[in-house]
Amino acid sequence: MKVPVGARKNLLCPMPVVMVGANVNGKANYTTVAYVGIISRNFVSVAMAKPHYSNAGIKENGTFSVNIPSEDQVKETDYCGIVSGNQVDKSKVFTTFYGRLKTAPMIEECPVNLECKLTQTIDTGRGETFIGEIEEAYVNADCMNNDMVDYDKVKPILFVTEEATYWKLGPRFADAWKVGEELKRT
Amino acid sequence: MKVPVGARKNLLCPMPVVMVGANVNGKANYTTVAYVGIISRNFVSVAMAKPHYSNAGIKENGTFSVNIPSEDQVKETDYCGIVSGNQVDKSKVFTTFYGRLKTAPMIEECPVNLECKLTQTIDTGRGETFIGEIEEAYVNADCMNNDMVDYDKVKPILFVTEEATYWKLGPRFADAWKVGEELKRT
Repeated sequence: MKVPVGARKNLLCPMPVVMVGANVNGKANYTTVAYVGIISRNFVSVAMAKPHYSNAGIKENGTFSVNIPSEDQVKETDYCGIVSGNQVDKSKVFTTFYGRLKTAPMIEECPVNLECKLTQTIDTGRGETFIGEIEEAYVNADCMNNDMVDYDKVKPILFVTEEATYWKLGPRFADAWKVGEELKRT
Repeated sequence: MKVPVGARKNLLCPMPVVMVGANVNGKANYTTVAYVGIISRNFVSVAMAKPHYSNAGIKENGTFSVNIPSEDQVKETDYCGIVSGNQVDKSKVFTTFYGRLKTAPMIEECPVNLECKLTQTIDTGRGETFIGEIEEAYVNADCMNNDMVDYDKVKPILFVTEEATYWKLGPRFADAWKVGEELKRT
């Protein structure tokens, strides 16, 4: 039996938790976000409420980063979601590095970093969704296996909006574009 | 040590695998997609390559659905990603139901369904990203717990683009907006 639960529950879950990095007044700031998306192979989206301290920096510099934390960093990740750059200097929580774009601060401690150029801003009323073209992706060497990123080693944090909880990634259990092949023969 | 791995690896993973439902020539079609996103509390995005059979139907009707399958449906889900509605009648793979919008087919067997109105189409070259406003969300009664969706029961399928594998959701391990509180006191 289907239960209608209303339009304002975004049940597209779980989503990977990331920290969005931006320079604000020349200093790195990191904001925790789970309203993210893949727009195409080299474009991502991050949705942020307008009062966030980082939004102005993203628009000023036209750059931002997407940093994927590991489950070991859950406290720092959550902390960056509950305190604002307006009150707290979050540049000290992590070690920052910069890439080619020079103004998109990235988190050394996060196993995966996407350095992005802002290409479009969608106004969603209370929030803004920033669409970014990935300029370069960086991965911790110890999370690589034969030139591929191993998410067993990344240990990303997943977010379920509905109950505001963080979840671990479970095990691989099937190959895409393969496991459904047998239904072609039936 | 950080390894630059190039811009065209979309490492924003894992993403929930969904099947996008659309009526094409008056018949339901389902396409498997993992390039999805949350734009705001009641807006989602789904990115689909232009040759997909469903794209014309989404634009013609201005509606689509997002169906979240359970791990038990991995074969059918993968199958809907490897065969095209051009060749195969995918309306027979699942039981279809319709909601208020009348033209957005949804999958009875999938534990979570989002019925969406198309509000914007972003042209990304080879693909199109459809942004939809959620009109109504439907959940299987046996996946609810005290009016909340229990993702332990939904058992969503997660996709890692990098290696094209399906993964299970692991266990909850922390509460959001809580676990980082202790860092405020240090």
